[in-house]
Amino acid sequence: MKNIINREIPEFVEGYGKVIPFAGAFTTLPDMQRQAPKVKTIKPHQSKLVASLERVFKDIPVQNGMTLSFHHHFRNGDGVVNMVLETAAKLGIKDLKIALSSIFPVHAPLVEHIKNGVVTALDTNYMSGPVAQAVSLGILAKPVVLRTHGGRARAIECGQLKIDVAFIAAPAADEYGNINGVQGTAACGSLGYAFPDAQYAEHVVAITDCIFEYPLAPVSIPQTRVDYVVKVDSVGDPKGIVSGTTRITKDPVGLKIADTAARVIQAAGLIKDGFSFQTGAGGASLATAHFVRQMMEQQDVTGSFALGGITGYMVEMLEKGLFKKLMDVQGFDLEAVQSIGLNPNHLEIGADYYASPFNSGCTVNMLDTVILGATEIDTNFNVNVVTGSDGVIMGGSGGHADAAAGAQVTIVVANLLRGRLPIIVDQVLTVTTPGETIDVLVTERGVAVNPRRDDLKAQLKAAGLPVKEISDLKALAEQISGAPEALTTGNNIVAVVEYRDGTIIDVVRQVEA
Amino acid sequence: MKNIINREIPEFVEGYGKVIPFAGAFTTLPDMQRQAPKVKTIKPHQSKLVASLERVFKDIPVQNGMTLSFHHHFRNGDGVVNMVLETAAKLGIKDLKIALSSIFPVHAPLVEHIKNGVVTALDTNYMSGPVAQAVSLGILAKPVVLRTHGGRARAIECGQLKIDVAFIAAPAADEYGNINGVQGTAACGSLGYAFPDAQYAEHVVAITDCIFEYPLAPVSIPQTRVDYVVKVDSVGDPKGIVSGTTRITKDPVGLKIADTAARVIQAAGLIKDGFSFQTGAGGASLATAHFVRQMMEQQDVTGSFALGGITGYMVEMLEKGLFKKLMDVQGFDLEAVQSIGLNPNHLEIGADYYASPFNSGCTVNMLDTVILGATEIDTNFNVNVVTGSDGVIMGGSGGHADAAAGAQVTIVVANLLRGRLPIIVDQVLTVTTPGETIDVLVTERGVAVNPRRDDLKAQLKAAGLPVKEISDLKALAEQISGAPEALTTGNNIVAVVEYRDGTIIDVVRQVEA
Repeated sequence: MKNIINREIPEFVEGYGKVIPFAGAFTTLPDMQRQAPKVKTIKPHQSKLVASLERVFKDIPVQNGMTLSFHHHFRNGDGVVNMVLETAAKLGIKDLKIALSSIFPVHAPLVEHIKNGVVTALDTNYMSGPVAQAVSLGILAKPVVLRTHGGRARAIECGQLKIDVAFIAAPAADEYGNINGVQGTAACGSLGYAFPDAQYAEHVVAITDCIFEYPLAPVSIPQTRVDYVVKVDSVGDPKGIVSGTTRITKDPVGLKIADTAARVIQAAGLIKDGFSFQTGAGGASLATAHFVRQMMEQQDVTGSFALGGITGYMVEMLEKGLFKKLMDVQGFDLEAVQSIGLNPNHLEIGADYYASPFNSGCTVNMLDTVILGATEIDTNFNVNVVTGSDGVIMGGSGGHADAAAGAQVTIVVANLLRGRLPIIVDQVLTVTTPGETIDVLVTERGVAVNPRRDDLKAQLKAAGLPVKEISDLKALAEQISGAPEALTTGNNIVAVVEYRDGTIIDVVRQVEA
Repeated sequence: MKNIINREIPEFVEGYGKVIPFAGAFTTLPDMQRQAPKVKTIKPHQSKLVASLERVFKDIPVQNGMTLSFHHHFRNGDGVVNMVLETAAKLGIKDLKIALSSIFPVHAPLVEHIKNGVVTALDTNYMSGPVAQAVSLGILAKPVVLRTHGGRARAIECGQLKIDVAFIAAPAADEYGNINGVQGTAACGSLGYAFPDAQYAEHVVAITDCIFEYPLAPVSIPQTRVDYVVKVDSVGDPKGIVSGTTRITKDPVGLKIADTAARVIQAAGLIKDGFSFQTGAGGASLATAHFVRQMMEQQDVTGSFALGGITGYMVEMLEKGLFKKLMDVQGFDLEAVQSIGLNPNHLEIGADYYASPFNSGCTVNMLDTVILGATEIDTNFNVNVVTGSDGVIMGGSGGHADAAAGAQVTIVVANLLRGRLPIIVDQVLTVTTPGETIDVLVTERGVAVNPRRDDLKAQLKAAGLPVKEISDLKALAEQISGAPEALTTGNNIVAVVEYRDGTIIDVVRQVEA
């Protein structure tokens, strides 16, 4: 069948189940009760400390076929996933589903666990590195479920992603299971992506390398939801948090795009007191923040909040009074990690609070504007951030589709060419974010406005911005590099791409080795 | 039938349902899933602000037979309950159940709403004043359900107290429903008793008199659980928070009891680094804190935390470094209200985190000792804090039975005579807290130790404390005042007393007018 944006998807995907087709960003409404784990009890003065991961596995007990969940705040410095899966392998456990909010190169040992049948399913919001490559080549019999950050929170709260055991890498914990990410030798900042796991998993294990005196404060995840506390040597290396792209670009083309994006925001009338903003950690996105900041300073504007994954640049804007609050679901660098532990206006928020579409209101809903990237964008403004030009998975939505849906003005910044290939195509290989939630594409050769936003188009034209049709920008790129050849993929579905509401917006098909 | 502590209770109570008899403080285990409200959604940039309470009633819509819940942090200064029920009455709504965590004299208009059929059921943890008196005289056809603070949280989380609409008196709110109790013109401090309501009610309404710029911080109750925000003139009068008993007693008998209680704690070996403590706001309880403090100072001891309802006295102990943390479910005076907004070591905790027996661990479980009061105690150490000597309801457990169950050493302090009546009896009129969870009774004429705690008895004797049998203390009192006449009550059950685990520990029968 075809979903509403004309993507060919099966009605049923082996290893995933019945497909609910994407029907529009705000069309599919929830019709369920919240996930309801079994109620627990514990006697007064009973200890939660357990001597080893093996002991925890036996106490729970972890069994074949279970779903184990993990959060990714340590990013490429994570130590917990590999440690837990090594324990599973050692104990001969098979057929696990791993629900890890993002997968990085450090998680390469997963490939071996998949080969050995310890792991047979993955559920994640982003994947890069060896695991993503192996998945793209069809290593898993079941398709990976690719979600958004808000969608994962939704899936957990709505009982669609049922977690048997949540393992939480806890930089600081007390003996009774209170946890935070801002203290300890390996502080990683916000633990926001683990909040839904802790709230709804059947069993919750805190894995920590620093046990503090009871009661720990602040509390990010409370003792009422944590069943076991295990002390290990190291939960991760905070140096691995920094992904290397958290500096402002020096590339003149990138700076030009960023400058234009800032002018788009200005033209849309958003640079005013109470302004709210989200941007990623990539070079051009951060550069946009830089130009926005200059405008705010020149016009003496005080914004209300900056949202999302937080960088040192945003911390500086908070400290200079340019924003009143930071709302932080994940620290992108060590400046952010330090700030959240010290500054009461730097708030830790959970993934549900950040971006879940199915609760009484997430924060992306309050965004004025967001700056996002793209690996491809089509002439209907549909964006791909999952697969590269070779069809291999090299990313994922993360909060991309969430912020796009929530913000009043969603801006994609991109070079007209990526490598030697035009970024604008007739059909992206994989849709991550539907075009109806993208308002503006900013390139170095002009700005395209979604036809759904004629109001905005008029504003940008009035401000003298180089507004063009997206098809004209596409033609411009093709004049330089020629039209790209369409990639041929096989039929085997290696991933289903779930929109934030739980419908299927696209699938990823296997590439040839 | 009789429950395990020999209280005569029916197997079925009209208007309440089937009775699960109390079977011991840690015997009845949970066997259910968590309460699962319907999942919600809201579109980006959709407003939650509603112009009036009437409008909220219509939007939800509030219907006959629903359960409306409220929290009691404004105590006798609450403005919200009366306001909401006036709206219900005006709109002709009938047959409401009011789940209000504690009922005070200010809630007198409830009597009229009961007479008119607007309200036909009450669910609370404490009641005093006109409503309690009217209930005792049989004004309600259905028995009131009297719970503990932890038990109410449990009942909400376990789906036994299903809330249709939670109305939350919010000293500070933003337009998107983030709430705290520490800002605004009517700050009341902790909002801990409202946490379970916000988490599990089908609809949540924030009623506020101060709307702050989005995003409010700190967040006590998050936007993700709040559906409507209504601005009113006043949510309550913080002066009504202080109940008048938050000063240390000057009565020499009270001071003697308090001094002895402190010596009991010392003799039990608890005055040492890491000591944790709970005491009520009553004169003798607070006086015990005073003597405990002197010991801590003399012995240079740093405690870990003080718990529960918090007074200025505890704030002072925090500020002087005698405790490292305060864990605050409710402010008992304006010093506590001020401190929780300023001191990062003064933590706000929810009722579930404080005291629910059915989660992965509440904080009463970590208590070394708690000082509690009693209106009666029997020779099996069962305590009554619900009914007075005339059989009229004049209180309730609040956290009494919770803290008693959790603490390592639970101490009841009481004058041997209350008015002219002995406090120790063969059978208390109403059991609130089972004797198995009470370790020591301290009176001005001696200390009685529960026979279950021979270890403790030996420690107290070794320390030279005046240890007596509880029957001897009873005889002493009766020598002074004579044995009291047993009160005769009718058969009509006006309240069921639910133990924290949901079993019925006793019932309250109607008194004659």
